[in-house]
Amino acid sequence: MIIVHTIQEIRKHVRDLRAAGKSIGYVPTMGYLHEGHLSLIRSAKEQSDAVVMSIFVNPLQFGPNEDFERYPRDLKRDAEVAGAAGCDILFAPSVEEMYPRGDGKVLTTVDVEEVTHQLCGASRPGHFRGVATVVSKLFNIILPDKAFFGMKDAQQVAVLQTMVDDLNIPVEIVPCQTVREPDGLAMSSRNVFLTDEQRQQALVLSRSLKAAEAAVAAGERDVLQLKRLVREMIEAQPLADIDYVEIVNFRDLATILTIEQPALLALAVRFGKTRLIDNTVLAGR
Amino acid sequence: MIIVHTIQEIRKHVRDLRAAGKSIGYVPTMGYLHEGHLSLIRSAKEQSDAVVMSIFVNPLQFGPNEDFERYPRDLKRDAEVAGAAGCDILFAPSVEEMYPRGDGKVLTTVDVEEVTHQLCGASRPGHFRGVATVVSKLFNIILPDKAFFGMKDAQQVAVLQTMVDDLNIPVEIVPCQTVREPDGLAMSSRNVFLTDEQRQQALVLSRSLKAAEAAVAAGERDVLQLKRLVREMIEAQPLADIDYVEIVNFRDLATILTIEQPALLALAVRFGKTRLIDNTVLAGR
Repeated sequence: MIIVHTIQEIRKHVRDLRAAGKSIGYVPTMGYLHEGHLSLIRSAKEQSDAVVMSIFVNPLQFGPNEDFERYPRDLKRDAEVAGAAGCDILFAPSVEEMYPRGDGKVLTTVDVEEVTHQLCGASRPGHFRGVATVVSKLFNIILPDKAFFGMKDAQQVAVLQTMVDDLNIPVEIVPCQTVREPDGLAMSSRNVFLTDEQRQQALVLSRSLKAAEAAVAAGERDVLQLKRLVREMIEAQPLADIDYVEIVNFRDLATILTIEQPALLALAVRFGKTRLIDNTVLAGR
Repeated sequence: MIIVHTIQEIRKHVRDLRAAGKSIGYVPTMGYLHEGHLSLIRSAKEQSDAVVMSIFVNPLQFGPNEDFERYPRDLKRDAEVAGAAGCDILFAPSVEEMYPRGDGKVLTTVDVEEVTHQLCGASRPGHFRGVATVVSKLFNIILPDKAFFGMKDAQQVAVLQTMVDDLNIPVEIVPCQTVREPDGLAMSSRNVFLTDEQRQQALVLSRSLKAAEAAVAAGERDVLQLKRLVREMIEAQPLADIDYVEIVNFRDLATILTIEQPALLALAVRFGKTRLIDNTVLAGR
């Protein structure tokens, strides 16, 4: 696997790949890779001639009181596991390389409306502007045919699909299933911050999603009832601090009262300083 | 010359050109072509294997009280003169093709800060958001190597250069000299709206730019004095209604008090309902 740190270098590799008629599968990440990221590499490998992964902890998508500084980083280990999983080129730029105006100054941003107003968009103002802007940049640098994203960040997938559609970006967004630990906890680079006790209590996230799925399978269609079921389960865990529990239309993340179409049940819960998200699609899956 | 109206068709032609190793020179326009546009086609032809021109009157860059509806259109004549000037493919999409969400609804926009705050950006709120968004879309559809823009819209060139730099868009922006009528009036599709009397008085625009150039050549460096000189010349024409007369740093359009670096003298003046712009670069050209 080749590791490059500059835009100029990665552009050269991309040019060579395209000149040779190779298709490019792209996996954008913030590093500290786990099995979820590796499954994205494997999907990209199956569907593309060459796999490019980027590792970039993007300051633009973190709020002033969020965890940009303490976000976990381990490029050496990441490079080993990415290469072993089939990644061909790892692009790991510095903040200065991606934002050369310095001091976090960015003059051009990409904004997506409507699908960014709820869920994590409501809790994290500016987050999806940062995501859409950096992904635009990375797409323009790597020029992939397909880009692979985990469904744990379901709203991110919705935002980027909207962006790609609206701006006619010639990239296919491929959403991939969330990968979980054997006990059900969704894989996340932030799981490393959990104490044993927090981690044990965090299992309520996937359990409450399963309970909601079961309730829907048993005929429950009322959104308020389903949200109450999930909230009560999570609130029973003393270390859990709910950011949101929401059920929205899966297609456009619009508010719904009753489940008639496929719906996204999404939640964000803090355990100490660590904020975890998880979700499932209810009905019509 | 081939004329296409859908994104699917133009993408096919672009794919074929790229597969054949041809470079693409792109000239985005709103149509009603004049000699300025044709000179862009000729520049594109000199520097590229194939020339694509788009004609699209973009509603997103017009304000609610601006002239979107009455902007002049003549696709039949445009196609003739573009083909004669060397255009290979003319892309003329409908509003629905470019904005399929309907009702002018756009969820994703590209915003450029700082270089959009003054000059036309101050007079036309939202104008450059509309320009940056549609040009992003057109670049993603046409995937040109180079894109050619007239310097009459000097701020547009600055905005798009900022956007291309910030978002790492793989397109070279090529600014081209303003083309003028023999009497000095800058070519514009909107000139057709001028009455004979307005047109005669509109010659003050290029005359006042020349006067400022002469004053700078004679040693004047004070921005207020130069602006006063230009204003007084324009105000002497009874049909002229000044929107702005500004002198800013050429590189980043920042406010300046003295001309030390190359500076942009830009003006916008209404004659009746018709708003004309013109500019020149003072010093160090």
